[in-house]
Amino acid sequence: MNNNTDLDNLISKIQTGDITSLSKAITLVESSKSNHQALALNLLSKLSPNKNKTFRIGISGSPGVGKSTFIDTFGEMLCSLGHKVAVLAVDPSSEISKGAILGDKTRMENLSKNPRAFIRPSASGGTLGGVAKRTRETVTLCETAGFDVMLIETVGVGQSEIVVKSLVDFFLLLVQSGSGDELQGIKKGIVEIADTLVVTKDDGTNQNIVRITKAEYENALHYLSPINDFWFPKVLTCSAIDNIGLDNIWGNIKEFYLKAENEHYIFQNRKKQEVVWYQNNIFEEVKNMLLKNPKFKSMFNKYSIEIAENKTNSSIAYEKSKEILKSILG
Amino acid sequence: MNNNTDLDNLISKIQTGDITSLSKAITLVESSKSNHQALALNLLSKLSPNKNKTFRIGISGSPGVGKSTFIDTFGEMLCSLGHKVAVLAVDPSSEISKGAILGDKTRMENLSKNPRAFIRPSASGGTLGGVAKRTRETVTLCETAGFDVMLIETVGVGQSEIVVKSLVDFFLLLVQSGSGDELQGIKKGIVEIADTLVVTKDDGTNQNIVRITKAEYENALHYLSPINDFWFPKVLTCSAIDNIGLDNIWGNIKEFYLKAENEHYIFQNRKKQEVVWYQNNIFEEVKNMLLKNPKFKSMFNKYSIEIAENKTNSSIAYEKSKEILKSILG
Repeated sequence: MNNNTDLDNLISKIQTGDITSLSKAITLVESSKSNHQALALNLLSKLSPNKNKTFRIGISGSPGVGKSTFIDTFGEMLCSLGHKVAVLAVDPSSEISKGAILGDKTRMENLSKNPRAFIRPSASGGTLGGVAKRTRETVTLCETAGFDVMLIETVGVGQSEIVVKSLVDFFLLLVQSGSGDELQGIKKGIVEIADTLVVTKDDGTNQNIVRITKAEYENALHYLSPINDFWFPKVLTCSAIDNIGLDNIWGNIKEFYLKAENEHYIFQNRKKQEVVWYQNNIFEEVKNMLLKNPKFKSMFNKYSIEIAENKTNSSIAYEKSKEILKSILG
Repeated sequence: MNNNTDLDNLISKIQTGDITSLSKAITLVESSKSNHQALALNLLSKLSPNKNKTFRIGISGSPGVGKSTFIDTFGEMLCSLGHKVAVLAVDPSSEISKGAILGDKTRMENLSKNPRAFIRPSASGGTLGGVAKRTRETVTLCETAGFDVMLIETVGVGQSEIVVKSLVDFFLLLVQSGSGDELQGIKKGIVEIADTLVVTKDDGTNQNIVRITKAEYENALHYLSPINDFWFPKVLTCSAIDNIGLDNIWGNIKEFYLKAENEHYIFQNRKKQEVVWYQNNIFEEVKNMLLKNPKFKSMFNKYSIEIAENKTNSSIAYEKSKEILKSILG
């Protein structure tokens, strides 16, 4: 694939929903080889903006909460409703790249066999900004291929929720049932970015404790400000195994989109996410370039150490650095 | 005051605790005139690091919570215990500079007459970074003048708590008594930076509701992670008018310092605050310089608008910008 005709062919095939071509394009986007990156950019610049209505949903939850089972059953339900579902994962800690496909197929046994679903393992390695960039591009490609529901999963390690939040319209947080002291989500501050909380495993002998946990989270939510004026986070419950409550969760998400679209939130928010991403990354890039600049680096390290060792104070270090900065930035 | 001898004289006088000289030095530090700034820097570079044990305490709370009355009575108590108390304010929204002195004297009637106390109104104007810089320098000068307790007050507008947090060892949050829905501190996320909460106005017919509010905040704190391993925030109560509970609050603060010093927290945290301030401000300065750079500015604005208007996507804009950045940063 070396010329424009090849790229145009690839795009045409993606637009028909051809999975092999979609995978090939995502591999290009994820590649760190410079000729692949150039091709990927060329490819992305040729895509016309997607005009179809799509859902971009983030899903997070601690290990053991039943995320795979949830996505498997929830994705199946969405496919049966006529949607085409792409499952992507953001896992900056993951060292596994292509090998994870097998893992994903095993843990989402039904969905991985569904012709209306596309499961792509985590783009691994690199900075959070890099993972976000590649995942955003993968979303664009999946939407071009006709997938209208993106389920973007995160393992909940470190800052990955923040990355996912910056890629989605709606954020679903799966939580464990358990005692009040274990409201992990709240403690981690994750609840502050969730649009809906789902207490999982509402089945068997678990049902009583699920009801108590639900009430506790509802109480805890009162202490937090909602992210959007038009939406106050709800606490729902489900059993992925017994297939109970999943239709209710989808109803809740559709209600969010209805309200959000009345507020012109979706399109504006997506564009805002992109502008914020661009601007942050420009200054991130400036930082990286400067930290490789010998003159800047020696100044920056010298004064940081001198301040820490009480050899100068920050005001003096700052004033002296400003002069050096002027000579670097011209 | 034009030469080194003058500066040396000024420093000697400050070291004896002379308030007029201290005020003169703070005025220099706050001045935006470039010759004053040069003098101030020279002055700061001549100060030897303070070796005495000092307390840097941040105090915040919504208007009406009784902050002035609290500081007035609390400061008086500390003076009577042999401390020398400096009251500084961080209020980036304030347009009043010197005129505020009268206001501060009126609202802290007793403390303003106490020879062991020094009340300095808010350094106004400029960015938060600028306010933080000047307040940090004022703290250094006050400590040189022998003041050992800094009470750094903030009005709680915008990001000013964050600024104060970056200047102090210990953060006290004053809260109103009231119903559960009015746990303003929690909603604002301020509680997350508080080392101790104080429910004010524990007097007269108020006492019952104060007790309920205390219990509610104690409950709410369970949902948050403590900032430091060695310290879990407490909820205390006081009446500044009846002078009840203030000794208990001071006892609580001293307990914090005792534990913190065992952890070598105080000195290390102060140095860390200075290094963080220096590094953040260097990149803030880089940002400012770049946004004045015509080549950078036109690139940055052009692509931000094109992304927002859906004329390009962020990946393409980013790649194109990187090339331009290289030509600017060399």
